[in-house]
Amino acid sequence: MSSSDRFERPIGRSPTTYAPPPAPVGARFSVCQEITVLWGDIDALGHVNNTRYFGWLEETRLAYLRLIGLDLSTGAPQKPVLASTSLDFLRPVFWPDTVRVEGKTTRLGRTSLTMDYRVTSTSQQAVVATGSAVVVLLAPSTNRPAPIPDVIREAIRRLDPDARDTL
Amino acid sequence: MSSSDRFERPIGRSPTTYAPPPAPVGARFSVCQEITVLWGDIDALGHVNNTRYFGWLEETRLAYLRLIGLDLSTGAPQKPVLASTSLDFLRPVFWPDTVRVEGKTTRLGRTSLTMDYRVTSTSQQAVVATGSAVVVLLAPSTNRPAPIPDVIREAIRRLDPDARDTL
Amino acid sequence: MSSSDRFERPIGRSPTTYAPPPAPVGARFSVCQEITVLWGDIDALGHVNNTRYFGWLEETRLAYLRLIGLDLSTGAPQKPVLASTSLDFLRPVFWPDTVRVEGKTTRLGRTSLTMDYRVTSTSQQAVVATGSAVVVLLAPSTNRPAPIPDVIREAIRRLDPDARDTL
Amino acid sequence: MSSSDRFERPIGRSPTTYAPPPAPVGARFSVCQEITVLWGDIDALGHVNNTRYFGWLEETRLAYLRLIGLDLSTGAPQKPVLASTSLDFLRPVFWPDTVRVEGKTTRLGRTSLTMDYRVTSTSQQAVVATGSAVVVLLAPSTNRPAPIPDVIREAIRRLDPDARDTL
Repeated sequence: MSSSDRFERPIGRSPTTYAPPPAPVGARFSVCQEITVLWGDIDALGHVNNTRYFGWLEETRLAYLRLIGLDLSTGAPQKPVLASTSLDFLRPVFWPDTVRVEGKTTRLGRTSLTMDYRVTSTSQQAVVATGSAVVVLLAPSTNRPAPIPDVIREAIRRLDPDARDTL
Repeated sequence: MSSSDRFERPIGRSPTTYAPPPAPVGARFSVCQEITVLWGDIDALGHVNNTRYFGWLEETRLAYLRLIGLDLSTGAPQKPVLASTSLDFLRPVFWPDTVRVEGKTTRLGRTSLTMDYRVTSTSQQAVVATGSAVVVLLAPSTNRPAPIPDVIREAIRRLDPDARDTL
Repeated sequence: MSSSDRFERPIGRSPTTYAPPPAPVGARFSVCQEITVLWGDIDALGHVNNTRYFGWLEETRLAYLRLIGLDLSTGAPQKPVLASTSLDFLRPVFWPDTVRVEGKTTRLGRTSLTMDYRVTSTSQQAVVATGSAVVVLLAPSTNRPAPIPDVIREAIRRLDPDARDTL
Repeated sequence: MSSSDRFERPIGRSPTTYAPPPAPVGARFSVCQEITVLWGDIDALGHVNNTRYFGWLEETRLAYLRLIGLDLSTGAPQKPVLASTSLDFLRPVFWPDTVRVEGKTTRLGRTSLTMDYRVTSTSQQAVVATGSAVVVLLAPSTNRPAPIPDVIREAIRRLDPDARDTL
């Protein structure tokens, strides 16, 4: 079922739900960040603005990149950049609340990897968004894709052994 | 070619390019916003942070929704919400610059529509990102998907006659 | 000593300090929020962008307004708006970190109040910014200043008995 | 008249005004930026969030620093940082709109300067905020205040001959 289909038929579980809650059976994530929803994250529609979710994903992505030992400082030999990202918004998020953002690598290539994310609202006790992102490592001197170093690759394998290999 | 494949082979056009520029042959968009890149949009990596692109898409989406006559005020009979969105980042954007964000409807359903977007940097004279978004109309009283009113549907048809119909 | 004078003489405590740490002797605050610094809060200079501090103050202000029983919903009889605000940036904040933002009312007028704030970095164990804000209550129907209701005024008095009265 | 006093007496000019419009007689600014208000700048109260104004000031400040010839690149011999800033919010700003943000140096010290700002709404044809900021130059190697180079000082003098000298 595509994300657009989801909205093409009546859904009636709850007045505060605009999509059926997904069933995250068997989901296992390797990194998790707790993030406070700020009042300023709320937009004119009264719920958290979509742009803020991408900041939450980024926070969890950076935590993951630190966890696998990637050097994030300015002079590092590789620079991780975002090649693409997407999100399905399942339920609105309100203030005050905290969200739990989980992530894991689901694909590991030669110079890039794909991460999947799940955002859960503490006050709603429900998954509010799911998404993914493709990260590519660049060599700062050339801005061309650079191979993921072996030590980093092994750290990813240990954390996320189920990641699909596209080397 | 998926966005991840794009980074799995060497690309050598230019030191400031990390992806081949796409060829937007025949592309025609029905709405366009010029947006100033702010210094504060730049993150620690020295280019515009990914979250800002989604704000640019939102701006163009809202301009489009106004153009088709959708009432965006608080008491309106329908409330447009974002169901999903995605972006491919093709080139980094720097400061100072202005971006041109174009959009059009590519799919028109009963209660939702899909828009495609293209972001062009003025200083680079190149497409820097492409993306899409699914917007669903909700009835504020129930928060359930509400049919797109006929007058709105006709306005979309006039602006974007090529939109695929999934009614 | 004005905030500009502070920078007109050499300060040598530490290479990561660009201002002498203030001595918050006797400071007592009535509300406190712990907020996570996000990677996306960092700007091109490598430290948290100034605009984010104002979001932190806002978060603490809103927590305070809830604490004193002010109705923050859309149809409330009074709407709190920010009349003015200021900040002294004492030390840069880096990622990752969490900040503790404390606030209290220091002046209580007929339709407005002044709050003082103190921002402390957990990882630096130091005050990184101090600031203040003037909040005015407006009647939503007229957008004119509205008297602070007695029950709210009493709640402020209980929390912050030292607030200067400018009724 | 302090910004808090302004709200302590009835003001009745207009239902959309919550403060008397200031009279900017004789004001002359040396730099000006036009900035688009984005829909995402609007917060839950329906007007532009206070944090965004500080981004507007920053944009104008950076434009000014470029204008006087300050090197803003990473390896530059001086790094401008914000020591303090303040704003008076005179009228709310709505979407859609563009704002004009003007700035000038009003004080020129040995290692720091003070800029004043004025924000004008195009659609309201009114000043919506006034503010100021203290910028200090740091030597990146020591993070201590560094003297403003003579060539920069002279450029400021030419642009803003009325700036008070606190050398």
